[in-house]
Amino acid sequence: MRFDLLLVGYGHVARRFVALLAERRSRLARDHGVRTRVVGIATRRRGQLYDGRGLSARALESYWVSGPSTGSGPPRASSTGGFSRPATPTVDFIRHATRQSGAAARQRRLIMIETTTLNIERGEPATSHIRAALAGGAHVVTANKGPVAFGYRGLARAADRAKRRFLFEGAVMDGVPVFNLVRETLPALAIIGFRGVVNSTTNYILTAMEQGQPFGEALAEMQAMGVAEADASLDVDGWDAAAKTAALANVLLGAAITPTMVERRGITPETARAAIDARTEGRRVKLVARAGWEGNRVTARVAPETLAGDDLLAMLEGQQNAIILQTDLLEEIAVVQRSGSLTQTAYALLSDLMTIARDVMAAPATRRAPTSAQRRRTPSRRVRR
Amino acid sequence: MRFDLLLVGYGHVARRFVALLAERRSRLARDHGVRTRVVGIATRRRGQLYDGRGLSARALESYWVSGPSTGSGPPRASSTGGFSRPATPTVDFIRHATRQSGAAARQRRLIMIETTTLNIERGEPATSHIRAALAGGAHVVTANKGPVAFGYRGLARAADRAKRRFLFEGAVMDGVPVFNLVRETLPALAIIGFRGVVNSTTNYILTAMEQGQPFGEALAEMQAMGVAEADASLDVDGWDAAAKTAALANVLLGAAITPTMVERRGITPETARAAIDARTEGRRVKLVARAGWEGNRVTARVAPETLAGDDLLAMLEGQQNAIILQTDLLEEIAVVQRSGSLTQTAYALLSDLMTIARDVMAAPATRRAPTSAQRRRTPSRRVRR
Repeated sequence: MRFDLLLVGYGHVARRFVALLAERRSRLARDHGVRTRVVGIATRRRGQLYDGRGLSARALESYWVSGPSTGSGPPRASSTGGFSRPATPTVDFIRHATRQSGAAARQRRLIMIETTTLNIERGEPATSHIRAALAGGAHVVTANKGPVAFGYRGLARAADRAKRRFLFEGAVMDGVPVFNLVRETLPALAIIGFRGVVNSTTNYILTAMEQGQPFGEALAEMQAMGVAEADASLDVDGWDAAAKTAALANVLLGAAITPTMVERRGITPETARAAIDARTEGRRVKLVARAGWEGNRVTARVAPETLAGDDLLAMLEGQQNAIILQTDLLEEIAVVQRSGSLTQTAYALLSDLMTIARDVMAAPATRRAPTSAQRRRTPSRRVRR
Repeated sequence: MRFDLLLVGYGHVARRFVALLAERRSRLARDHGVRTRVVGIATRRRGQLYDGRGLSARALESYWVSGPSTGSGPPRASSTGGFSRPATPTVDFIRHATRQSGAAARQRRLIMIETTTLNIERGEPATSHIRAALAGGAHVVTANKGPVAFGYRGLARAADRAKRRFLFEGAVMDGVPVFNLVRETLPALAIIGFRGVVNSTTNYILTAMEQGQPFGEALAEMQAMGVAEADASLDVDGWDAAAKTAALANVLLGAAITPTMVERRGITPETARAAIDARTEGRRVKLVARAGWEGNRVTARVAPETLAGDDLLAMLEGQQNAIILQTDLLEEIAVVQRSGSLTQTAYALLSDLMTIARDVMAAPATRRAPTSAQRRRTPSRRVRR
């Protein structure tokens, strides 16, 4: 079956994703019966491009280099029903593109890949993009933590109403499964809480400081590598970890919190000095994210913690991440990401795409039963144990 | 939807599973629309019992206490189409029971739960049970590593032909997802190899020895707790780990090996002494299972290895298990089981049951597309990378 993709946001991750699709094209077709093509693309800087017959690799490359249009006039329609235009509101583009791809949308073959830059304070513009795409009958895949951190419950409801999937594995630990792990492989089980190391930059800085590197130098290194956010405070002050914590709590614990509701302390040069002292005692300081049910509410926190040396989180070096899930039936399960890369984030998008493809191809006519995670959202779950 | 269960084997794990179903009955019905009932039960020692209308909790308890029949005559039919009989060949019972439950089988609502004791040298009798159940139209869930270690490819093919599922999450790391993790959450990705600590008894002995406990005493403790196999050599000589390694290699790497083809060294009091020495140097000895593609064949090994102190496997204490998967797109991912228990093995059965239920309920009429793991079996995969 062929799936049509709308790319909203087209930075390094989306480009690596498109390259990955090309690299794996024959394998996806042969092993999974899945073919894909990009029909639309939109970024704030480069404008918007759509062609229902599919955009060629060349068209995508030319878009990357110069955008679809050098002028600033109205949309220019092509003879094939395609169009290109400079940056009008992206939400309008999504509405227009999903209408143009109406047949694919009705057949559940239309997927928006959302990778715009996050505004940490509101989860926008991604949230609006997702609502528009779902309303237009497209499934949504995003690597963006913002929408899940700020408005998971509403978006999940919108997806339910639209009978489309909303997936976001890349929001935490790149393509290493956390959300999909719980939804697909831990049915009929409750997640009671979790703790983890989910921000690579701060973990790298702490590790480097232990080895004598100054704070600023370690940070600059991560920025040069493209791992740290351009605005370093997002990492260092714990905002990134707080957003991921809110996303995890909303999805896995059925909470309805935002990143601002996560108690938050970041790392400072002083934290790093404490890390050196701890190390000499066989202990380690890590920026730990944690959340859990306390009575009938979820509490969530990001803060430096001094951990015993044999704590699983204590042994995470450099950019490694890990999440330890506390469950009612399996006690603790840990998932560890041993390294991060652009390919891993791109793979998160691919794995969500394949989850959607599998669903649609398994039950093209009927509606898939709600998954356990979708069920988890219902408030009734909260009081059960 | 209601699922009918045939229990083949009824030891501690199966009994905990039945209790778990009872504990979660209302939740499974409300959150997942899944109801279950036991219609048949067979063990070598207690004989066989079947009632297509469902066996009551009282019937199960009485079976546990005294078996279905005190005589040794022919099957005794009840007026309701049920029957009980002393131990005739279990395969015959499965054939008979799947015929009696023909309607449920045709509607894909019949599931055999296989938990018999493993004959490590052949993977029997579980393998024959599974073939008979699939042939009779039942899905199969097992916590038994034998069938997957000895004959995965043939059984997977039989399941494909029968259009039924054959699931076995409990074969390795209890209910902590490994097989389901790869199949459900890592689509379009190749597992290149893995290494892990997969036998709890040997890891417990090594940990205890480091702390000064004698080898035999640590082993006796694990046997008393019911964690070690009654025949201690299965654990200590690495047989259990070798069977799990073969199972993992067959399913995740597309190999076709048996436990006897796994290079194997177990632990001895000398290994444990080496563990003490290693510990003084900040290193640790673990019984490591590993397998991977080398050229165009899979090699697999179980042996004590001296690991650096910061190796994830080095930090596994007591009964903890972990598997580190080497992948082509996500580099290394690790899954860690932080503790083991009867409930965790029982949960493995429950999670597989729920996977089947989700499938059947999502696409009651159509056939589900083959999963990526099923696809992985095809030899074509081997040469790709």
